[in-house]
Amino acid sequence: MKEWIWGRNPVYEALRAERRQFYELRIAKGSQKEGRLADILHLAKNLSIPISQVPRESLASLGGNHQGTALQADVYPYVDLHQILKNAKESGDPLLVLLLDTLKDPQNLGTLIRTAEAIGVHGIVLPYRRTATVTPAVVSASSGASEHMLITQANLAQSLTQLKEGGAWVVGLEEGEGSQTPDQVDLTGPLAVVVGSEAEGMRHLVRSSCDFLLALPMRGKIDSLNAAVAGSVALYLIWQARDFQGLRS
Amino acid sequence: MKEWIWGRNPVYEALRAERRQFYELRIAKGSQKEGRLADILHLAKNLSIPISQVPRESLASLGGNHQGTALQADVYPYVDLHQILKNAKESGDPLLVLLLDTLKDPQNLGTLIRTAEAIGVHGIVLPYRRTATVTPAVVSASSGASEHMLITQANLAQSLTQLKEGGAWVVGLEEGEGSQTPDQVDLTGPLAVVVGSEAEGMRHLVRSSCDFLLALPMRGKIDSLNAAVAGSVALYLIWQARDFQGLRS
Repeated sequence: MKEWIWGRNPVYEALRAERRQFYELRIAKGSQKEGRLADILHLAKNLSIPISQVPRESLASLGGNHQGTALQADVYPYVDLHQILKNAKESGDPLLVLLLDTLKDPQNLGTLIRTAEAIGVHGIVLPYRRTATVTPAVVSASSGASEHMLITQANLAQSLTQLKEGGAWVVGLEEGEGSQTPDQVDLTGPLAVVVGSEAEGMRHLVRSSCDFLLALPMRGKIDSLNAAVAGSVALYLIWQARDFQGLRS
Repeated sequence: MKEWIWGRNPVYEALRAERRQFYELRIAKGSQKEGRLADILHLAKNLSIPISQVPRESLASLGGNHQGTALQADVYPYVDLHQILKNAKESGDPLLVLLLDTLKDPQNLGTLIRTAEAIGVHGIVLPYRRTATVTPAVVSASSGASEHMLITQANLAQSLTQLKEGGAWVVGLEEGEGSQTPDQVDLTGPLAVVVGSEAEGMRHLVRSSCDFLLALPMRGKIDSLNAAVAGSVALYLIWQARDFQGLRS
């Protein structure tokens, strides 16, 4: 199956990561071939991808905010959990895996992928059903970070069992009975972090697999953050607790 | 000028905050009058707002994801900077003001308003031009947090001068020459935090008004976060540095 990736950063990162098969690059006629677009053309030539110049209007039918470029490629290359565990092992850092329990909004999924990539999460686990998947809209919302991130689709409860057997603690991001604040827990060891869906949070079976619940203290009249922001803040606090481990590696 | 606020949380928070004049509440025929919708009807009755039941389809023309309810109200009630400073003084906490330098995306503005409200920012300053303003789409993206947050439209450079005269340090969120990481700076005093636009960051005059630049360490192949996420993480780190001050007040 093929699809069109659109937008300058998404196309650039897909080409740079080289994890998909590419078929055709389209550029809007009249585009200034400088900056990011020059980088894209350079990479496409090196990879011997056919390049065509097309009327700008014709790109609109391929997707959203195309910024004058689109790339036809194989669908998103999911990996399996073993590759994520291998990646973690090779990094030399304590395991850090993100599990998203039926997140619905493509923008939220893209934002979380981008944050996870920026702080060095080793991989992301999505469930098989009732979840946003890595569509071109999500690639765009992640600013292309999806192309570098290892993402698997799997049964979340089984994945949590495997991660626990590998020595990880499972932390669910949720305000609830017995939940702890970031200063009350040790976030420096191997961790599997679970973020629930926007409206309903984690499913019961997933929640019951958590070793502890982490709540972000708040004090406003609105007592919750956007799901992608809450997940991003939690990931950032974990990375900070590890003294920005691996930053200069 | 009147406008329609739509969506259950936005309508509920607008009624709860009571900072606008309200004219009419519309509910989709056949809605279950329980949960948040029951709260909305209760508040609307107490405020003597005319309530009408309308076909669900007719709500679609009033805005986005209406969730069966819309409220006609005066346009967003901006305040002036003095009210924000007064709010800070009355809180007893060190001043914390957020300035957004020409943020373009309504979703990003809404997300930042929601995070700011959740951690007790005293007020937000938007420039007069070239910026997203607090439209019903932003109210929705903020999940109604805009209705509780004090927001002013003002000249940013002049506002920064006023804030400095009031004793605040101005911190610009930007990776650049001489920028410091969160662990290198004292974030516990009175602060004015500036977040730049999605694509171009801060304008020159605004950047030159900053006392220091704060950069969030990262290590991915994509070296930036979504603007709303970066701002949200920075605000959260500031609140954490203050030991979640005011949480139990």
